[in-house]
Amino acid sequence: MIVVMGPHATREQINVVVKKIQDAGLGSHLSAGVERTIIGVVGDSHTKELLRQSLEASAGVERIVLILQPFKLVGREFRPHDTVVDVQGVRIGDGSIVVMAGPCSVESREQILQAARAVKAAGAAMLRGGAFKPRTSPYSFQGLEEEGLRYLAEARAETGLPVVTEAMDADQLMLVIKYADMVQIGARNMQNYTLLREVGRSKHPLLLKRGPSATIQELLLAAEYVMSEGNYNVVLCERGLRGFDDQTRFLLDLSAVPVLKGLSHLPVVVDPSQATGKWKYVGPMAKASVAAGVDGLIIEVHPEPDKALSDGPQQLTPQHFTQLMSEITPLAGALGRRVQSPATIRT
Amino acid sequence: MIVVMGPHATREQINVVVKKIQDAGLGSHLSAGVERTIIGVVGDSHTKELLRQSLEASAGVERIVLILQPFKLVGREFRPHDTVVDVQGVRIGDGSIVVMAGPCSVESREQILQAARAVKAAGAAMLRGGAFKPRTSPYSFQGLEEEGLRYLAEARAETGLPVVTEAMDADQLMLVIKYADMVQIGARNMQNYTLLREVGRSKHPLLLKRGPSATIQELLLAAEYVMSEGNYNVVLCERGLRGFDDQTRFLLDLSAVPVLKGLSHLPVVVDPSQATGKWKYVGPMAKASVAAGVDGLIIEVHPEPDKALSDGPQQLTPQHFTQLMSEITPLAGALGRRVQSPATIRT
Amino acid sequence: MIVVMGPHATREQINVVVKKIQDAGLGSHLSAGVERTIIGVVGDSHTKELLRQSLEASAGVERIVLILQPFKLVGREFRPHDTVVDVQGVRIGDGSIVVMAGPCSVESREQILQAARAVKAAGAAMLRGGAFKPRTSPYSFQGLEEEGLRYLAEARAETGLPVVTEAMDADQLMLVIKYADMVQIGARNMQNYTLLREVGRSKHPLLLKRGPSATIQELLLAAEYVMSEGNYNVVLCERGLRGFDDQTRFLLDLSAVPVLKGLSHLPVVVDPSQATGKWKYVGPMAKASVAAGVDGLIIEVHPEPDKALSDGPQQLTPQHFTQLMSEITPLAGALGRRVQSPATIRT
Amino acid sequence: MIVVMGPHATREQINVVVKKIQDAGLGSHLSAGVERTIIGVVGDSHTKELLRQSLEASAGVERIVLILQPFKLVGREFRPHDTVVDVQGVRIGDGSIVVMAGPCSVESREQILQAARAVKAAGAAMLRGGAFKPRTSPYSFQGLEEEGLRYLAEARAETGLPVVTEAMDADQLMLVIKYADMVQIGARNMQNYTLLREVGRSKHPLLLKRGPSATIQELLLAAEYVMSEGNYNVVLCERGLRGFDDQTRFLLDLSAVPVLKGLSHLPVVVDPSQATGKWKYVGPMAKASVAAGVDGLIIEVHPEPDKALSDGPQQLTPQHFTQLMSEITPLAGALGRRVQSPATIRT
Repeated sequence: MIVVMGPHATREQINVVVKKIQDAGLGSHLSAGVERTIIGVVGDSHTKELLRQSLEASAGVERIVLILQPFKLVGREFRPHDTVVDVQGVRIGDGSIVVMAGPCSVESREQILQAARAVKAAGAAMLRGGAFKPRTSPYSFQGLEEEGLRYLAEARAETGLPVVTEAMDADQLMLVIKYADMVQIGARNMQNYTLLREVGRSKHPLLLKRGPSATIQELLLAAEYVMSEGNYNVVLCERGLRGFDDQTRFLLDLSAVPVLKGLSHLPVVVDPSQATGKWKYVGPMAKASVAAGVDGLIIEVHPEPDKALSDGPQQLTPQHFTQLMSEITPLAGALGRRVQSPATIRT
Repeated sequence: MIVVMGPHATREQINVVVKKIQDAGLGSHLSAGVERTIIGVVGDSHTKELLRQSLEASAGVERIVLILQPFKLVGREFRPHDTVVDVQGVRIGDGSIVVMAGPCSVESREQILQAARAVKAAGAAMLRGGAFKPRTSPYSFQGLEEEGLRYLAEARAETGLPVVTEAMDADQLMLVIKYADMVQIGARNMQNYTLLREVGRSKHPLLLKRGPSATIQELLLAAEYVMSEGNYNVVLCERGLRGFDDQTRFLLDLSAVPVLKGLSHLPVVVDPSQATGKWKYVGPMAKASVAAGVDGLIIEVHPEPDKALSDGPQQLTPQHFTQLMSEITPLAGALGRRVQSPATIRT
Repeated sequence: MIVVMGPHATREQINVVVKKIQDAGLGSHLSAGVERTIIGVVGDSHTKELLRQSLEASAGVERIVLILQPFKLVGREFRPHDTVVDVQGVRIGDGSIVVMAGPCSVESREQILQAARAVKAAGAAMLRGGAFKPRTSPYSFQGLEEEGLRYLAEARAETGLPVVTEAMDADQLMLVIKYADMVQIGARNMQNYTLLREVGRSKHPLLLKRGPSATIQELLLAAEYVMSEGNYNVVLCERGLRGFDDQTRFLLDLSAVPVLKGLSHLPVVVDPSQATGKWKYVGPMAKASVAAGVDGLIIEVHPEPDKALSDGPQQLTPQHFTQLMSEITPLAGALGRRVQSPATIRT
Repeated sequence: MIVVMGPHATREQINVVVKKIQDAGLGSHLSAGVERTIIGVVGDSHTKELLRQSLEASAGVERIVLILQPFKLVGREFRPHDTVVDVQGVRIGDGSIVVMAGPCSVESREQILQAARAVKAAGAAMLRGGAFKPRTSPYSFQGLEEEGLRYLAEARAETGLPVVTEAMDADQLMLVIKYADMVQIGARNMQNYTLLREVGRSKHPLLLKRGPSATIQELLLAAEYVMSEGNYNVVLCERGLRGFDDQTRFLLDLSAVPVLKGLSHLPVVVDPSQATGKWKYVGPMAKASVAAGVDGLIIEVHPEPDKALSDGPQQLTPQHFTQLMSEITPLAGALGRRVQSPATIRT
């Protein structure tokens, strides 16, 4: 941490800053330049973090420059090797590409079973589908709730595909853990710290989606909340930022993939369906994600998108999804990688 | 609602769309232009909303244009006159300017009492202070929790200032309702629908902060969640969007004030402290907010900002706050408005 | 300038960096912390700037932290006192508020004369009006060009109001200088360095508009281009950033006003017409700008907005503008300021 | 075009709108819904565009909805088949992937010759290199100007690689046309309409870069300026938007690739170097661009990045570039495409 004093900082103001640093038990290191005095702060980073705000509000201080990243457990400096998150035998982060697919919402028993069979046949390794739906309007379809979870569990029993589905509060989390293999925290709840801590205590595998205006650092600190409670089974997901152009629903930040892979050891997946909001862009962005180095994809597939109760325009038909999988497989091969195959049914 | 067919839409695709509209019990109105066919949809807006996504995913459809706003209870068309939210006698939205002030976090009994006395003396009508703090890092100070709420209640008992403070989940909400006069839902939880519904059912006055990438429509739909549960005591708060320039912490969207006042009957306040993140910009932005037509301000004031446990750099000293209030009062007068005075202590 | 070495930087990599610094004739100052080595660079800032990119690309370097602002002549450190730009007797930056008003485009002799009379009667001190119009589409009205400039000059002759109008290239600049008192560089040309240098050499007063995604620093560096050619008559203008919400045309960044006033000695004006794109928001944002501390406003006023050839929806009628001026005047008074009166006609 | 009247629009206001439409020689089509009256406008699109702003400013009008895209020549509706731009035998848009590579700036004869040899050896089909450099600061290296162009021409003579380089004004354009095979208009000049028209009249092949806050539609309309002057040799380039996270220099909008390919027949290339600003992210984003369907890449390669006079941190070494090309080639193959080979030297 470096304290930059303003151009008119007085000797006394500098002394106050130095004294604060020393009082906190940290070392200070003063360097008087031509136009600015800067003061390096050396010592324990937790202590520095507590001191930072006090220094920022001190008279004569122009700004504080942080040298270290504010996260710990999620960082590559803490754990150099890639984390592999195991979801009922599906290994996310092991070098292969895990495709999670299924409808935006679970709408009926028949719909989710059809979807599950179709995505498995096309090569998906996990099943997605929302039972609790965060909807912008209170008047939109809100999901089948526990009934939806039961259908998901039934689809898993039949196909062997582990299930990922969203929870938005502690009560829903308990139900999701009961029925599903991986819980999703959606973009709107990325900084719902109560929920993050609950998932942290549960140790259940988590798919953590980046909020539409969250920085990379905020996403990593949200994951840090989960890991600091002892749950290391966290997968990060980029699903689009708030953009200014309505050609797509959100603005997919694909460079987040190599950035996250560089800063953190956690697996990274991309959701091209939520990001683009239009099925015809899902294929190109799914392939681009693979080429950018993702550990997985989460793709919306609906047996009949034009009858969907939510997000119809962004869901692929089973035919389109099958076509996409047939394109992704050789693409992965050309990159020296492979698409993880769906499990045979456990008995 | 208008369905715009693509340039190559076939007669058959048009018929499918028209049939869907009729099957939903709505009227259709076909207009064949030189380059596009467009189909107007007439009838109940709830039915239209359910139909929309199905139409968007129909073959040959280029896009859907919504004519009406998707919200209802929050809209001026529903209620033309301004809503006044009464918080223990403080009337937000009655034409006067309500100033809520106090520290970012409650840090000790002495600190909040000092702050309450100071902001009342300067003319604030309500007291703010966080007991549950949403912090980006799990390692930052997280608030005094129920102890903080008790101190806030004590400060209210002494000064008569109603208290507004944040809750992040259902459990915290119960405590906040017990101790405080108005609950705040922060920017990170603006789309925490579980929490919105809970506050809706509670009927407790709510200060709802706009998320940093929320559209005006999303903010109004979040308020719609609360109102649709029967709680009409909602105050909207602009507190800055995610911007690209680190000169300020967020990017204050002040034009949101007249936009919101035009679309909705709910009161609108601005938080210049969170928005700018630097105390020296709080004054100019507070005054600009008043000139833009706000119903209130929420301003961070700390007895000793350089000892604050959170957000020191954006908190005003009591001296600066007193100065600011002395500038806002004549400004309000020049606009034909007044600053609402703090209550005398109730007995 | 501070060089932060990565966590795995070797002794040798550190030596390479130190050698580069020394070879450039600068001083280095090495500080080995627990987790990072940082190297301070001391000396001439121009030399540092040239060295920076070489250091950023050196092996083992994590990042470079700049301590000083990269601009010089535009900065408060270079000139502590406010610059006053004199435009034919109108003094921008002298503490008063200068209102520039007139139509988006000059459309006819009659239209600009009517507009000039109306805005002068309402109290504007300068006349605006576009003769060369930058239009997003090549098929939109592109302005009357030199004919428009002649009408502007005629309007000035009659009313005594100095004229500000836009130029988009060197040829247009020569014409604008011939007919008008102040040249405008629009948002789309903020980083048209050829044009900036030309205006710099001309010494003509300049209204420099911020681009819709320009940082404060980029705006100041654009002004630096002009000043580095010897033209100190620069007025900065905030006119809205690219936002994500189509409720307004752009997103007015009003906190840019105190930020710019703090960093630079140059006058700052706001264009609420371009920023909001809707006439009904122009009044609130004009008043907010005054309260935020601007040196001036530039407002679109058209005798008959519903017959305008460009930007009709954002132009005020003379009646609305007169009303607005009658509100701004007492507002300025309450802030201890005044609106600068239009000149009596010079003879 | 559809005119949506406000909820309180009077009969008279509706009549005024209808009369304006009829007076313009267009057809109107009135539809009275439950809560809004909407008026369809049928007829020539140019006339509609001129009428639009007048209607937007009419009393009682809530908003105008455009049904057709505002561009013509650049659109797929105008020309369904892909345009192929021929640059001295390099065919951009023919289905293959054209890689343009070279240093950010031409710094010396030796440097550009080395770079040209290296990028050709690695498989690039065109040479890039800036002679006129748009720099944010007036104190940064501004390019070698005509000397740089001569070195580029010499490098082409030796290697046979056609050259693309930037011009920022009409004078530079004449020089660039004299020495180079393709002119670049950079992001800062995307809406420099004078320059766009000049390039339009020149018929010289153009690489048009998207501005950092330009919408897709604005980019296409900028290309429309060029095409409307008769120059159809336009290649579009995505190079990153203004984002809020400083992990990368800009925010690469890769979904722009399929969006542009869908709306327009013009070829699309991506510049991952400018977009990310860090060489380590160039490879992943180059590969992602290929998978997203680009017609080409433009990549910065410098013989010695740590000695570069501009943008050192984002330039690849020849070794890294060779490695990248060896990865892109099989990737293109897996997608059923190929990388266009560099020409043998013409004699």
